[in-house]
Amino acid sequence: MPTIDGKRLLAELRQLRSIGAQGIGVVRPAFSAKDMEARNWLKTRYAEAGLDASIDGVGNVLGRSGKPGRALLVGSHSDTQPTGGWLDGALGVIYALEVARALAADNATRELPLDVVSFQDEESRFVGCLGSRSLIGGLTPEMEQDAVDKDGVPLAQAVEQAGLAGVPRLKLSRERYAGFIEAHIEQGPTLEDTGNRIGVVTGIVGLRAIRFVFKGQQNHAGTTMMKTRRDASAALYELAHRINTEFPKAAGERTVWTMGRLKVEPNAASIVPGYADLDLQFRDASEAPLDAFEKIVERIVAEMNARGGVKIEATPGRAPIAPTKMDEGLRKHLESAAERHAPGKWMRLPSGAFHDAGIISASMPAAMLFIPSIGGISHDFSENSRDDDIVLGCQVLADAAATALKEMR
Amino acid sequence: MPTIDGKRLLAELRQLRSIGAQGIGVVRPAFSAKDMEARNWLKTRYAEAGLDASIDGVGNVLGRSGKPGRALLVGSHSDTQPTGGWLDGALGVIYALEVARALAADNATRELPLDVVSFQDEESRFVGCLGSRSLIGGLTPEMEQDAVDKDGVPLAQAVEQAGLAGVPRLKLSRERYAGFIEAHIEQGPTLEDTGNRIGVVTGIVGLRAIRFVFKGQQNHAGTTMMKTRRDASAALYELAHRINTEFPKAAGERTVWTMGRLKVEPNAASIVPGYADLDLQFRDASEAPLDAFEKIVERIVAEMNARGGVKIEATPGRAPIAPTKMDEGLRKHLESAAERHAPGKWMRLPSGAFHDAGIISASMPAAMLFIPSIGGISHDFSENSRDDDIVLGCQVLADAAATALKEMR
Repeated sequence: MPTIDGKRLLAELRQLRSIGAQGIGVVRPAFSAKDMEARNWLKTRYAEAGLDASIDGVGNVLGRSGKPGRALLVGSHSDTQPTGGWLDGALGVIYALEVARALAADNATRELPLDVVSFQDEESRFVGCLGSRSLIGGLTPEMEQDAVDKDGVPLAQAVEQAGLAGVPRLKLSRERYAGFIEAHIEQGPTLEDTGNRIGVVTGIVGLRAIRFVFKGQQNHAGTTMMKTRRDASAALYELAHRINTEFPKAAGERTVWTMGRLKVEPNAASIVPGYADLDLQFRDASEAPLDAFEKIVERIVAEMNARGGVKIEATPGRAPIAPTKMDEGLRKHLESAAERHAPGKWMRLPSGAFHDAGIISASMPAAMLFIPSIGGISHDFSENSRDDDIVLGCQVLADAAATALKEMR
Repeated sequence: MPTIDGKRLLAELRQLRSIGAQGIGVVRPAFSAKDMEARNWLKTRYAEAGLDASIDGVGNVLGRSGKPGRALLVGSHSDTQPTGGWLDGALGVIYALEVARALAADNATRELPLDVVSFQDEESRFVGCLGSRSLIGGLTPEMEQDAVDKDGVPLAQAVEQAGLAGVPRLKLSRERYAGFIEAHIEQGPTLEDTGNRIGVVTGIVGLRAIRFVFKGQQNHAGTTMMKTRRDASAALYELAHRINTEFPKAAGERTVWTMGRLKVEPNAASIVPGYADLDLQFRDASEAPLDAFEKIVERIVAEMNARGGVKIEATPGRAPIAPTKMDEGLRKHLESAAERHAPGKWMRLPSGAFHDAGIISASMPAAMLFIPSIGGISHDFSENSRDDDIVLGCQVLADAAATALKEMR
């Protein structure tokens, strides 16, 4: 079995962390100068590891093995949230690099074809999982055309500023690949709460979104009597609170929903707002609660619109994600490796977060490995994992990659 | 009786509108380049009208008459909301200029001492009614020290950039002035709805404010289960909706409340917000509903905090405004003039908006005149009034100023 170098792994994770570091967090949104710096740094590391390394036209970094046979793809993403933690994405990217080296250093695994990847814009500055979508041919011209970030920057402009205009876009050949494995921090508290050190992901939850737009009448907050107001903010508060009150009745045990982004205009204390918008996002491993939520929203919006006053428009998100199952064959390799290195300390669990593996699974067998997040915290500067869990997860991934590749030959 | 020149009045209102015009609206926030341009333009007009004109250290423009006797002060403010209408403030400022000219042009009123003023920052870029507060000695060092605009610019910096650092600040002498009259658009629909063309203001409503801060835990929107979340946005929606549900039970007929400014952090669809804040503002002509509202807020916040999870802090606004009565003597002059020029078409009403007259009334007798706002719309680019109402209001003000000044002699 290949043996990974834990010190080298931790050192390189910290080196990647330094690119875009802000305090203990990392700010490296897709296509930013820091993101491109990290991608060029990765490309150099891939080449040093003996891989054929390139950055494609949307910023994906791919390192291809020259060894014969059907390859296994391993990796994750190196872009971060606007105020992100240091491990979300980065962990799986550096794991892949370390596994490639460990396989190459061992006579028994040297000839196995392992490719490594860092996908672009998993964190949805423009389009969630933009890079993995592009690699499997799932990024449509419509998606690209409408894509702007929250400051109104169009995708095409960000691509150009990143120096990627005219650079060819890669596609993953279905003939070349036998499968994909992504390692990631759990980003939730389940492993920690249950005392487990490794999670083998059974599936990725589905995600749907609704954008609400509230159209009222902007007016003076002192002179406009309550009964004549058409206050966009009051309608937003009512709808959001009713959703939070009614959804629990239709939710499963692990169903989640969030209304974490909103805008009120002109956002001044002395002005009755004439406009507001709000994003609702909801996730579950099965479709039933998601369907039920859509019906609840439809009913509340219809009731509120029937009253007159503020007009509410509800538009489904452009890219709903269906719940996906992880490949059972690849999962078995992860489970065996987990049991070998962490006997009795691993579990099966669904992923509540979406990942590139959910996109790639449409094109080839895909699987995922989790390590614990301290306090379950993620998408926050304070995101962290224990060093020994980080090292253990990489060793489990290396073993699973080796046995899976051997079986495929 | 003095006769105003309606054409000149409308032409100068439009000229002032052109300074900072954006489409049909005006963007001339206090201390901005456009605001200072307008104030210098006014100073020149005051001087042309034979007044001793100056701009003081906070930007107030004062035009002093050289005639003997106790003076009447007339005016309003020329700064605007961030996206303001063309008449809010500007109407009363140009009225004052026109009334000064009309009095000077008439042998019977030529010797009457009438001063004109444009106050600074009525619209609260830094401190609401900053200019009138300063003129009566009510702007404290604490108010100034903490004052920043919504982009974080400190007041002192804005004063310096406006070229006012070191310029003396004026104080209104209680000996010089017999009273103050401010004309303004109604900014509400009452005059229009009742078919009246002139409003004589009985009093200005009181205003209190509360700032809510919600402290939760930022986390991933897919992996953090509902029962463990501490979602700052969900708490904000609940509190705001409960306020909107419970306040009507304690409200008077003309009580108003608004939650038009808020912030959610990091304001991203895939992140459970860890922080939010919200401004609540409420107004009434009497103290009772305002007291009742504070008790309701206290109870809801205590209930929500008792549950644990998100921690809510409620802090009263720094500068509550007590309801104020307008001076009965000055009101009688306005009522007589209104009945002379618009018989049966005027009414008495409270002001739901706050005005500089509310500040000045602490120092001398003060009164206000309203003209109708089309559709009651204000604090919006589309704010407007009919030309003949604009001309009528100025004539009523000129008459009232003349009779009041004659009585004072």
